[in-house]
Amino acid sequence: MSMLESYLAGDWRAGTGKGVAVADAVTGETVTRVSGEGLDLAAAVAYARRTGLAELGELTFPQRAAALKAAALALQERRQELYDLSARAGATRRDAAVDVDGGIGTALVYVGLARKGLPDHTLIVEDDPVPLGKGGTFAGRHVLTTPRGLSLQINAYNFPVWGMLEKLAPAFLAGLPTIVKPATPTAYIAAHAVRIIADLLPPGALQLVAGGVPGLLDLLGGQDHIGFTGSADTAARLRSDPAVTRRSARFNAEADSLNCSVLGPDAVPGEPEFDLFADALVTEMTVKAGQKCTAIRRAFVPANLLDAVGEAVEARLARVVVGAPGADGVTMGALVGLAQREDVRAAVARLARAGSVIYGDPDKVEVVGADAERGAFVSPLLLRADDPARPEPHEVEAFGPVSTLMPYRDAAEVNELIARGEGSLAGSVVSYDPGFVRRVVLGAAAHHGRLLVLDRDSAAESTGHGTPMPQLVHGGPGRAGGGQEEGGLRAVHAHLQRTAIQGSLATLDSIIN
Amino acid sequence: MSMLESYLAGDWRAGTGKGVAVADAVTGETVTRVSGEGLDLAAAVAYARRTGLAELGELTFPQRAAALKAAALALQERRQELYDLSARAGATRRDAAVDVDGGIGTALVYVGLARKGLPDHTLIVEDDPVPLGKGGTFAGRHVLTTPRGLSLQINAYNFPVWGMLEKLAPAFLAGLPTIVKPATPTAYIAAHAVRIIADLLPPGALQLVAGGVPGLLDLLGGQDHIGFTGSADTAARLRSDPAVTRRSARFNAEADSLNCSVLGPDAVPGEPEFDLFADALVTEMTVKAGQKCTAIRRAFVPANLLDAVGEAVEARLARVVVGAPGADGVTMGALVGLAQREDVRAAVARLARAGSVIYGDPDKVEVVGADAERGAFVSPLLLRADDPARPEPHEVEAFGPVSTLMPYRDAAEVNELIARGEGSLAGSVVSYDPGFVRRVVLGAAAHHGRLLVLDRDSAAESTGHGTPMPQLVHGGPGRAGGGQEEGGLRAVHAHLQRTAIQGSLATLDSIIN
Repeated sequence: MSMLESYLAGDWRAGTGKGVAVADAVTGETVTRVSGEGLDLAAAVAYARRTGLAELGELTFPQRAAALKAAALALQERRQELYDLSARAGATRRDAAVDVDGGIGTALVYVGLARKGLPDHTLIVEDDPVPLGKGGTFAGRHVLTTPRGLSLQINAYNFPVWGMLEKLAPAFLAGLPTIVKPATPTAYIAAHAVRIIADLLPPGALQLVAGGVPGLLDLLGGQDHIGFTGSADTAARLRSDPAVTRRSARFNAEADSLNCSVLGPDAVPGEPEFDLFADALVTEMTVKAGQKCTAIRRAFVPANLLDAVGEAVEARLARVVVGAPGADGVTMGALVGLAQREDVRAAVARLARAGSVIYGDPDKVEVVGADAERGAFVSPLLLRADDPARPEPHEVEAFGPVSTLMPYRDAAEVNELIARGEGSLAGSVVSYDPGFVRRVVLGAAAHHGRLLVLDRDSAAESTGHGTPMPQLVHGGPGRAGGGQEEGGLRAVHAHLQRTAIQGSLATLDSIIN
Repeated sequence: MSMLESYLAGDWRAGTGKGVAVADAVTGETVTRVSGEGLDLAAAVAYARRTGLAELGELTFPQRAAALKAAALALQERRQELYDLSARAGATRRDAAVDVDGGIGTALVYVGLARKGLPDHTLIVEDDPVPLGKGGTFAGRHVLTTPRGLSLQINAYNFPVWGMLEKLAPAFLAGLPTIVKPATPTAYIAAHAVRIIADLLPPGALQLVAGGVPGLLDLLGGQDHIGFTGSADTAARLRSDPAVTRRSARFNAEADSLNCSVLGPDAVPGEPEFDLFADALVTEMTVKAGQKCTAIRRAFVPANLLDAVGEAVEARLARVVVGAPGADGVTMGALVGLAQREDVRAAVARLARAGSVIYGDPDKVEVVGADAERGAFVSPLLLRADDPARPEPHEVEAFGPVSTLMPYRDAAEVNELIARGEGSLAGSVVSYDPGFVRRVVLGAAAHHGRLLVLDRDSAAESTGHGTPMPQLVHGGPGRAGGGQEEGGLRAVHAHLQRTAIQGSLATLDSIIN
């Protein structure tokens, strides 16, 4: 099986050595091998800093938006190729839509935001002059300019296309050349997307390195940006690197998250919110086989509704068909690999100490169109923990189709339980009681990057608990990494250096025009 | 000599053990002793999180502004006490004004900004609803709320009052309780300021711990904020702590900085800018005896003006009178201590490898009203490095009255030299040539948090190269720590958690009102 090529300094090159075999999530066959050995990362960094930065610097914000649009449209045109590759990573058509169409949509939203909200210039003037003297001869204002560095984007395996595009779009608009380091299990999907768009972007604006990146951080410093999505362990390791601690490279992390969803006490069986809650929970468990950093891990329901919710969710899970993407009736695909399945099983074993598995068997699942053991299949797994004070559900993230139901007594208690997640990307409240919603949202806000309220009035148009929107911030405090991505043009601004400039009004004018 | 007391959980308590003696910068006598031994930091953290957070949470932004104003006015009323203490740390009346009046002014600017720019509420709604569906039933918007944590503020010794107030003001307005950890050499000044204001702030809103803080970071996590000003080494150590790397405590650093000032080629002798440059350089060298993170360390002048600038600066330095603050004619005081003088001498020795000392003797200075050896006195020291490619001037910060003159040929070269500082807090361009100014400012912007243009039109009202303004951002990329303070209400926002909330318009309305 051939070695996956990296795109460095304008050329596609394969790493040397044996590399790592990447298996098809469904069949276990080797899809490709990945090795970063022998790749000249120093040359890639130099190419980004010299060629990429200069080429991007020649383009105004609207011109960058136009290039980004061309890239997004090329991906749209050839999205079937990405769907086909995604299936090999275990993704159903629905999963691939989240990744591929979601990524393209995100890039296009950024195109629109840039056209509307960024000037026909290469810098942003952030505010009006602030007078700094009574005579009006001296003032200050803030400009945002492109750092003289690059953006290293280290992505997770679950969304190889969306994860790349949601980081690339704001960095590209900001004029920062990008080096993408996709996660090995799905690097071939990201690399294919790069093949589709590479020639549509200026030279040096986008490079991709498959495999490890030893020594790369040694080359980065205060003008560079590192965007990371992945585990808290890796986040901590990267954040401890002298590139960050000593040279102050900007670092943005999105890491583990024990996201919650809260059912309101008003949402008894028969109320629309009861069904909305059960539907959303099952959706979050099964899309991407639960391999989503925003998936609901902790489902808090009023104590008196615990049995009813359990039954409603079990009934829905019983209709889930696990199997090969594209096979007849399949609604949930495979995990990305066998190692990840072992991780999920281990995490479920830990979670089960706090209660019991009430739906599914961690070691057994019926599968359509594939071999359940050769492929990385796992059943949806619903746990129930009657004592929500147990630590496990608030600490252990099973990165698969796994959620834990827990009871709560009142808004005060559920707010305490939410806080025990120590910071999450996304939470939701499913209730039609404005007082309850307000209390939980305001109590939970400091622990979340995003909070969704789901009710009968908004359900038809709701984008759902697990879907980050490019217009809104994505990220969360604490365990979730303390970072922030997207949020509309905030993400573009975050890639730029803010500088206060001071002088006479005429001087300030002549600098920015 | 008695032990300096800390203000913890509402009481003043002294640490135990022998502690560290803090010497009078002028006489060498012991002013106080400092020890953090035996102080219950866990109780202080709990007091901040419980009492401080709740008390501040009871106040709306305007109410917090009113409390902050009362504190600032109390300091103004008793500022003479702070001047007197500052003199013991080597500060002249002019130096103390920068620290004490500057700090009070900063707090009052924040009071004004809060009154004008923050709502009569405890949360900030950042934007209008963003529609997320065609039917208008679902939207998102962003709110900023107070984290459930505290702000640990670790300050430098040079500005015990300003440094405390510029961090306290935005944290306080944001509703975060503060624990101040002043630098040991001037902790007695910060502690006195806290004595003046403590009773005017809500219980738990402000605590002060003198001495070391072993184990304190173990108690902090994702809801907490750490603001640091000091050396790059300490910044790196703090930033490597699991509180930051694993638990994602927010961390803002302001560290070393090799700030530059650039004289334009138009500013030949006889032009006002020539004198403005020489005056500013001497001011920055001598205020606080050059112990300013924003002081000019690298003075770039056109090669053909190097001799003339050297002579003009020497002539001005010859008029500087070093000595005891308040003694007859004294215009420059002492360094904060003898250890710091040793550091300055060692740094000057390294800098001198790149050139020579053209004014002053690192080991000898004439002093008025004090003993030159017993007090921490040092002469202003002007160096000249004819080869600006040497590494030392771009890497070695002598934290005292020390600057290095270097020649440059053209705007392109000076921009390259500026970048060799690897990120600075403040830079300045002194020129009346708009084209030159524009080229240097735009080239230098990505390397700076603040850039001042000084010319004949704005000089009378200019706030100067070294003075951070509360309305403008203070901080810089790379070596300068990669952080950002002040910047008006940006600093308040930076202490809050941004959360996207999604739902129907009616739901969003009912949450924020």
